[in-house]
Amino acid sequence: MRIAVDLLGGDGAPAVVVDGALRALRADPDLRLLLVGPSEVAGDVIGALPPADRHRASVRPLRGAVGMADPPQRGVRSDTTVRGAALAVAEGAADALVSAGATGAIVTAAVLSLGRWPGIRRPALVATIPAIGGPVALLDVGGSLEARPITLAGHALLGAAYADVVHEIPRPRVGLLSVGHETGKGDRARRTTDPMLAGLKLGGDAHYVGLVEGYDVSSGERADVVVTDGFTGNILLKGIEGAYALAGGPPPGGAAPRAAALLGVAGTVVVCHGGATADDLASGLALAADLYRTRAIARIATALADLIEVTT
Amino acid sequence: MRIAVDLLGGDGAPAVVVDGALRALRADPDLRLLLVGPSEVAGDVIGALPPADRHRASVRPLRGAVGMADPPQRGVRSDTTVRGAALAVAEGAADALVSAGATGAIVTAAVLSLGRWPGIRRPALVATIPAIGGPVALLDVGGSLEARPITLAGHALLGAAYADVVHEIPRPRVGLLSVGHETGKGDRARRTTDPMLAGLKLGGDAHYVGLVEGYDVSSGERADVVVTDGFTGNILLKGIEGAYALAGGPPPGGAAPRAAALLGVAGTVVVCHGGATADDLASGLALAADLYRTRAIARIATALADLIEVTT
Repeated sequence: MRIAVDLLGGDGAPAVVVDGALRALRADPDLRLLLVGPSEVAGDVIGALPPADRHRASVRPLRGAVGMADPPQRGVRSDTTVRGAALAVAEGAADALVSAGATGAIVTAAVLSLGRWPGIRRPALVATIPAIGGPVALLDVGGSLEARPITLAGHALLGAAYADVVHEIPRPRVGLLSVGHETGKGDRARRTTDPMLAGLKLGGDAHYVGLVEGYDVSSGERADVVVTDGFTGNILLKGIEGAYALAGGPPPGGAAPRAAALLGVAGTVVVCHGGATADDLASGLALAADLYRTRAIARIATALADLIEVTT
Repeated sequence: MRIAVDLLGGDGAPAVVVDGALRALRADPDLRLLLVGPSEVAGDVIGALPPADRHRASVRPLRGAVGMADPPQRGVRSDTTVRGAALAVAEGAADALVSAGATGAIVTAAVLSLGRWPGIRRPALVATIPAIGGPVALLDVGGSLEARPITLAGHALLGAAYADVVHEIPRPRVGLLSVGHETGKGDRARRTTDPMLAGLKLGGDAHYVGLVEGYDVSSGERADVVVTDGFTGNILLKGIEGAYALAGGPPPGGAAPRAAALLGVAGTVVVCHGGATADDLASGLALAADLYRTRAIARIATALADLIEVTT
């Protein structure tokens, strides 16, 4: 197993990525990394490893960075580290991609390099929210930003499969995020999507439980999967994380990877926050390794293959 | 000072409202209430008061309730407690209105009974988020649900004036909620609104600081006022509150009223959560009393009068 890591992605790159890569290698003896970035930065990682471990890191030298303020289209350019890392996965030189770069550029590079799943026009980023009753899958947290009913229906399919395969919840409850529980609550997009989801076959034993609220994402009481647009989901995720940071952490047993998985492209892609710490990067690398080891992305794609025409 | 309280608003009504009203009367010896609802429910409040205090509560008997699942238009009907309470304010029989009923019905009743401020087409609900550096005014948290640039610009004016008058922040920093700090981040509505706000005269010494993220609402580090649409704001507020509830409360010194003020109508209106507890109701009544005592709504209206034509 070898994970391509984007050395130039994120506000703290490359120092934070170097530190995160070293932590991840130390924590997981089976992990190997393909370091995508400037040779001298990769050298900092390799030089810090014990000589016996140096074979665990290899290098794809690239110098192009995509800044957080750059347009997502910059992720198309093959001289950028994010595109190089995605291409490494496409070519089989790596098994997964982890980046803390600009989300738009990562999604663009992943879609172009790996391709979309049939019937999924808008890949979604799924985050795991720690809740008392177990993990809640929140999606989308930033893969696409406009709230369209057809996109939200696709997210429901992706999220139900993710909860089943990754969170091992056999009968996931799927809710649509809105401003009240009662039918009819919400903006125009939610009022259109609610009846769509009620009539949608979600696959396996997943079932739609109707509208849920912001509370339900932190408590996990009503739903195991919470569907929303990437704009609202990104803001909610960061708001909850910010509250936990100020209050001294999530509830007991509530650890969750501080990174999101990209669903809807043909490969394992994990996105860390732009402001990720070294521990967050290591957490993202561990998530990518878990997803690859359990063949999660391929299993989700298979589970969806029969259902996906509903959304096209 | 007399506050009209909607005895039939909220999931726990009338019992929770009765309890909340009693707590508020106990906490504030200057408070008087106009109890709007069934006589027997009002009797429960008055019967529980010491005889010497019974003159502090009077009754407007009405039996019509607006359920949380009813359409907002039901708030038009003059036999409903929410409309009755709003009319009491319009007639001068009460100085403020507090309800834990359905937000849409409260806004509808308030707009019809009290009228909108000139130039404000969409009243906004403003919530106070406890943050380490001081309170953050988040708006809209549910007054209107569609994200329109002109509406968001109106919220910026309202929020800046609220932070100045109510939070006593002389040079409020106003941010627009989005998915990143960099110009260009966000959905179409945010990308249109960001340059609009940059060019908008906000009044007093308020100034626009650009895009902010979900973290910034809980931390308060970047902005004192965070502008968003009512859909996203409602979800974020409930998500942050849910996280604090699970983590054992907001940061030290971070107490804030668990109720929101309605800005843009000609009267003092406070909205509690549908799921409000008796303490939340009492907190809403205390907020309404403070707003009335400090003439906050009138002062905000005056501060905006010169600026408001910008948004029309």
